[in-house]
Amino acid sequence: MFTSRVRIALAEKGINYELIVEDLIDNKKSPLLEKHNPIYKKIPVLLHKGKSICESKIIIQYIDETWKEGYPLLPSDPYLKSQAAFWADYIDKHTYDCLKKISITEGEERQKAVEEFLEFLKVLERELGEKPYFNGESFGFVDMALICYYSNIIACETLANFSVEKHCPKLALWATQCMKRESVSKTLADPNKIYDLMMANTKKAS
Amino acid sequence: MFTSRVRIALAEKGINYELIVEDLIDNKKSPLLEKHNPIYKKIPVLLHKGKSICESKIIIQYIDETWKEGYPLLPSDPYLKSQAAFWADYIDKHTYDCLKKISITEGEERQKAVEEFLEFLKVLERELGEKPYFNGESFGFVDMALICYYSNIIACETLANFSVEKHCPKLALWATQCMKRESVSKTLADPNKIYDLMMANTKKAS
Repeated sequence: MFTSRVRIALAEKGINYELIVEDLIDNKKSPLLEKHNPIYKKIPVLLHKGKSICESKIIIQYIDETWKEGYPLLPSDPYLKSQAAFWADYIDKHTYDCLKKISITEGEERQKAVEEFLEFLKVLERELGEKPYFNGESFGFVDMALICYYSNIIACETLANFSVEKHCPKLALWATQCMKRESVSKTLADPNKIYDLMMANTKKAS
Repeated sequence: MFTSRVRIALAEKGINYELIVEDLIDNKKSPLLEKHNPIYKKIPVLLHKGKSICESKIIIQYIDETWKEGYPLLPSDPYLKSQAAFWADYIDKHTYDCLKKISITEGEERQKAVEEFLEFLKVLERELGEKPYFNGESFGFVDMALICYYSNIIACETLANFSVEKHCPKLALWATQCMKRESVSKTLADPNKIYDLMMANTKKAS
């Protein structure tokens, strides 16, 4: 999810890059990953001019400031930038944990996790309002922060039998608009594959 | 703690401001706080030109970009800025929870929390190395992120009978240097008061 966030940013900026895929099965870490992200040993890591930058939101800010020409990913106005940072943080504080809870629980507990997730999405729906994107007219930082969870959200909808569109129609429309961007549609994982993975994990755990 | 972080940034920039104190006893929230931070209802909030900015690290970035003249709080180089953001995040991911665990546990559990905290500090000690400040020669973003916990760390040392200086002498020296800055010494709470508060909470819980 977080790697796709960075790949979307690179695509929006039109930056060519080499993708080094990490084999994360059985929680193995390659020597390359251990070297370039010794603290967390997690992807994504951006390698640029012999230096490594970790953490997806930090990487996007680095990309935006390093390749200043082309499509801006963050607003230049300090207040608008602070709001983008606030909402991207808000998204990360809630989405990952909510989706995980939905995918690993069952019955009433899962239902409670779904309700919690929908409450969180409704806050985002209010923030989006009538704007096409979170930052306003153009696709940017907050959109990237949220859309990277898209495939997992779709998979969770199937798994836990709920509909984001029913509760948050504006967010659903926003997602459709995001998916029309090549940077997004070509990068995100297939929701069916995520669903199969979730099902396999559920079976393994039971 | 997080309010002192913002006050240190404002003092370093030489910005005059009005401090509105929130009475947080019994978890009460003022209408002003509810209005300006409706999502988290937490301090600090910076009110500037009729707008509100929340979350201490985001506020510092806003301050730095809005008052460009004077002392820079963040490096202008995108790579150095990304590293500052990485370490400030790292500090917030660990310090608060570690200190809380130390203050509310006892016996073996507390000892384990202390060891965990010291391991985390050793990572920071390695990152600091021989530099006077985390960013290099000048006091900045990462220093502000960590020093705001100083009084609570001192209180925890007394409470749990451990010494940061013994395990991390460079960090202890760094803290002494930071405390020589008026922006820091005039802002941080008295560690004795924090200790008394921790003791009172422990008694209340038992």
